[in-house]
Order: sequence, then C-alpha cells, then structure tokens
Amino acid sequence: MKAIAVDLGGTNIKAAIVDQEKGILEQVSVPTYADLGKDHLLDRIADTILGLSKKHEVIGIGMGLPGMVNLEQTTVQYPPNLPGWEVVNASEEIQKRTHIPCRIQNDANIAALGSLHFGVGKQFTDFIIITLGTGVGGGIIINKTLFKGSRGMAGELGHVILDYHGPLSNSVTRGTVEAYLGQRFLSRFAADLISQHPNNPLYKTFSNNFEKLEPLDLTNAAKEGNELAIEILRKSGEKLGYAIINYAHMLDIRKYVLSGGVSRAGDFLFEPAREIVKKHMMGPFQEDFELIYEDLGNDSALLGAGGLAFDSFA
Amino acid sequence: MKAIAVDLGGTNIKAAIVDQEKGILEQVSVPTYADLGKDHLLDRIADTILGLSKKHEVIGIGMGLPGMVNLEQTTVQYPPNLPGWEVVNASEEIQKRTHIPCRIQNDANIAALGSLHFGVGKQFTDFIIITLGTGVGGGIIINKTLFKGSRGMAGELGHVILDYHGPLSNSVTRGTVEAYLGQRFLSRFAADLISQHPNNPLYKTFSNNFEKLEPLDLTNAAKEGNELAIEILRKSGEKLGYAIINYAHMLDIRKYVLSGGVSRAGDFLFEPAREIVKKHMMGPFQEDFELIYEDLGNDSALLGAGGLAFDSFA
Repeated sequence: MKAIAVDLGGTNIKAAIVDQEKGILEQVSVPTYADLGKDHLLDRIADTILGLSKKHEVIGIGMGLPGMVNLEQTTVQYPPNLPGWEVVNASEEIQKRTHIPCRIQNDANIAALGSLHFGVGKQFTDFIIITLGTGVGGGIIINKTLFKGSRGMAGELGHVILDYHGPLSNSVTRGTVEAYLGQRFLSRFAADLISQHPNNPLYKTFSNNFEKLEPLDLTNAAKEGNELAIEILRKSGEKLGYAIINYAHMLDIRKYVLSGGVSRAGDFLFEPAREIVKKHMMGPFQEDFELIYEDLGNDSALLGAGGLAFDSFA
Repeated sequence: MKAIAVDLGGTNIKAAIVDQEKGILEQVSVPTYADLGKDHLLDRIADTILGLSKKHEVIGIGMGLPGMVNLEQTTVQYPPNLPGWEVVNASEEIQKRTHIPCRIQNDANIAALGSLHFGVGKQFTDFIIITLGTGVGGGIIINKTLFKGSRGMAGELGHVILDYHGPLSNSVTRGTVEAYLGQRFLSRFAADLISQHPNNPLYKTFSNNFEKLEPLDLTNAAKEGNELAIEILRKSGEKLGYAIINYAHMLDIRKYVLSGGVSRAGDFLFEPAREIVKKHMMGPFQEDFELIYEDLGNDSALLGAGGLAFDSFA
C-alpha cells in the first residue's frame, strides 16, 4: 500500500511516495515561494503531488504543515511562515486540485506518526514524542492512535509550565518547557553562562558573536569534555525531566521518544532527565519508564505524513 | 437499572442502591474498623452489600477507595488509611463473597464518574474534574469515558508541577498543584500571612491555634469582606489557573469541573483562576473554556461508584 506524503515548510515543499512496508520510495523537493500567495502555493503543492501520483497507485495524501489543525484534520489556523494563510481548509483545496483524498496534521503530530509507523514508536502502544527544535512540540499516541483532544490541538507539550513565574518564551505563558529547551532559549542560556567563563574554549569561539552558538556546538564541546558545555546540557536535561514528570503524572504514559535537533545532544541531555525522573516522579509511574532517541532524522516528516494517509484512508 | 455503590473510607463504609435515572434510592453507613484487618474489612463490606442486594435487582457493584487502581479496575495498591492492604484484588475478594460482579476505582476518578453520570459533567463530552480536598486529585473524561492511561493511573492532577523549585507537598515532587491547593498547604500559607497581620479579625480568632484554621474559615471571612482572606484565596486561585493551563495545553480539554471542600470558596478561588487562564493560556485553547462548580456534595462518591458499575456492567 502506498500514499503520497507532503512536508510543507516555509522554504521547501517536500513530497514523496511512501510505501507502508518499505518507507520512502521516491521523493522530490521544490521551493515553497510562500510570498507568491496562498493560491499559487496550493497549485504548486498539487502539481508536485500530481507529478508523483502519475507513476504510482496511492490511497491518499497526508500533509504535514505548521500551525494548529482541527479535529477533522482538514483545516489549519494561521500557519507561521505562510503569509496569506489565515484559516484554510487545505485538505479540501488539495483534493479539489488533485482528486485524491487528503488529510493534514501539524508538524509535531506528524513526527509522532512517523515514529509510530516507521520509527522507535512502532514497539509501543502508548508513547509521547517530544520534538526539541526551534520550538518544542509534541505528539501523544494512545492505543497506537494520535490523541487529538476536544478540538484537535492536544499535545502542546512545549507550552506546559515548569515555573509559573519563570521566563517568557514566545508564547503568552511563563516558564514553559519551550522557554528552557527551545533552541533559541537554550542558546541564550548558554551564552549567558559562557560569557562568565572567558577561559573556556567556547568563549574564544563565540564571544564575538553568541548569535552563532547552536545546541550542536554545545554537544560537540561536551563530547570533547568541556565541563561548562556538559553543565549547560545537564541543566537543560533536568528541565526535560520535570516536563516528563508533568506529562506522566497526567497521562500515565511510560514511554518517551525524543526527536529534533536539540535531542542530538543524546545522553548529555537524557541522563540528567532520567535522574530527575528517578528522583521526583511518583514511584508507581517509574515502572517500565523509558526515554529514547528517535533517529528517523530528516525523513521523519515525510514518513509521518505517509502514516497520516495510512491512518486516514487504509 | 440499578447498581450497588460502595464508598470505602478510613472511617466509614457507605453503601447505596443507585438507580441510573433516579440516583440514590437507599443508603447505609457502617464504621470501617480498618484496624481489625483486611479480611475482616472485606467481610464487613460484603455483608453491607448483601444487606442491600436482598431487596433490589442489581447489575453489579462499583466501589470507590483511596490508592492507585490498575487498568482492569480490580486491584488497588497500598491504599492510605487501610492498614494491611498492600496489593489487593478487591474486586475478586468482593465478588467471591457476594457473587455479584465488582469493579473498583480510586476516589478522584469516582468523583469524575459521579459528575459524568449525575452532575454538571453530564452535559460535556470531554472534561476534567479537579478535586480540591485534603489532597488534590482529579479525573479525566474523554468521549464520556474515564481516561486511565497505560496502567490505570492517569489523572494525578495534584502532582503536576507548577514550579520545579517550589515547596514540597507530601509527594516526592516539588511545587506541585497540591503543594499550593491542598487543604493543609493552603491553611499553612494562610497562617503565615495572617500571623503578619495582628489587626485582622482572623488573627484574633486563630493566632492561638492556627492548626484550627480551615479553608472554609477563609471563605466565610472573604464573604464578610476580609481583604486578607480574599487575597489568600486569590493567590491560591491563580495557582489553580496555572494548573488548568497545563492540563489544557496537553489535552485540549475545555471544560473544568471543581469539587471538594476547598472548592466551596467558589468565585473567590475561580475568578482569579479564570483571569490567569485568560492572560496566560494560548488563545485558541480559550474558545468555549469553562470552569464550573460541581455541587453533588456528599453524594458524589456513591453516585460515582454507581456510575462505575453502569459503565462496567450495563
């Protein structure tokens, strides 16, 4: 069984033929040109889909995109980086142009579906994926199904509060998971600490331009034994641990899958999280607790969009 | 359709015949005598049930009790105030003695089922009940069904963190909802503030014995216009608001039902919570948001236990 997967980003539209067993068979990427407007973009997506569908028999289209998606997986609200898109029934617009059924879902939930269908999540009935990227998002899988909540917006894991009087992230909520683990905030926290340690090698590399400091630089420095980098990642990993305690105490889900650029810090981030969980999570919730890394990498979004199509139309 | 409902507390065993339409038809209460041991207590519960079942045709038994209950709603782990109960298949023990099928659930989830079947929750498809008593608990209703998580322990809403470096409650977790809104902590917070205001009428009443100060005293003082009492309840209500933001951002549930002794403070507690939600919850989650009081009162536990029987055996 095959489906068409689309990953709509601010820079590129990626599309692929995804086979339920074999994964991605064929993929293309074209520039988004979002500034040419909504209709032009929908036409470009449809053309890209039609180019792929000529050669394969597919059951439907799954598309991942930024923004909040409704319960029916058809309409997106105010997607960032897509000017002119306010509230758009993208599913209908694509179906109209391609005559292939289409469902949409936001990027974080797509990552959850990618893990469920093709990644480490395949082995679990219930799990939570935490995507640590520019922002922090997530998806909740319950009984091998995406949990969507009353209106389709469940799983805003980055906007869960860890300290109600803590720092603001770009949301209206203070002290959220994203305010500690979002790439921008983690880099800023690192820059603050590094600027107090002029003898540290990271100071020498970045003191002229802390804007360039990325979480990957911290990971690389940590691997070389840089104590300050290890400490910065440890503090961040502890916040991840508190976040997981909140998710677990609410939902009684024992399996946590980490993905996204910041998660490439691996055990520099995960071990401190596991320590906090061990120390502060209620005992009965610790049985079978697991925190693991999802390594689907760049294919995650297309595989997840394929999974959305299989879940919707198979 | 009728069921037998049991509310097993540390002091009394309450039991009732609950009719699905009419609610409680008949009820009895006998002392628990928990110190006489597990088997004696199970026998007492069974005798109480058999006394009621002689006169009515019932479909089964639902029993609420303290402690963590498994996914199958049969076994309870280490219930507080029931010495000698470690891990007990209470469902089987009661069935063996009464020959009537039995399911069990913890007190907070029973309150959720009470609201769902007989209270303000009847009108909602999805809602969260927050029980503000000695401890803070809760239950999550999704699609008119109790959400139990991977192992049956979901909904530990009192142990969700609001400030990871905040005060300890009796759990291993710092800065939890219970550490601010649990009756004992709320009273201690109030005592701290009142002791700094010797001219306040509350100081005159309680300064010799702050142990006696209960949330109801604050509510009564607030109703009389006592500014300090209003301020204490306002601060506590704000914490409730932050807690609700965490629940909502995770689960996208819009309806919140408050029950338990502390919730009798009503709008002194709820209005500040609504203000925090308005200010700090993400916009799309605010649509149709509602926070309301459950007034089933003392009948809540028996009605919820009846609801458990209807959900399990009807």
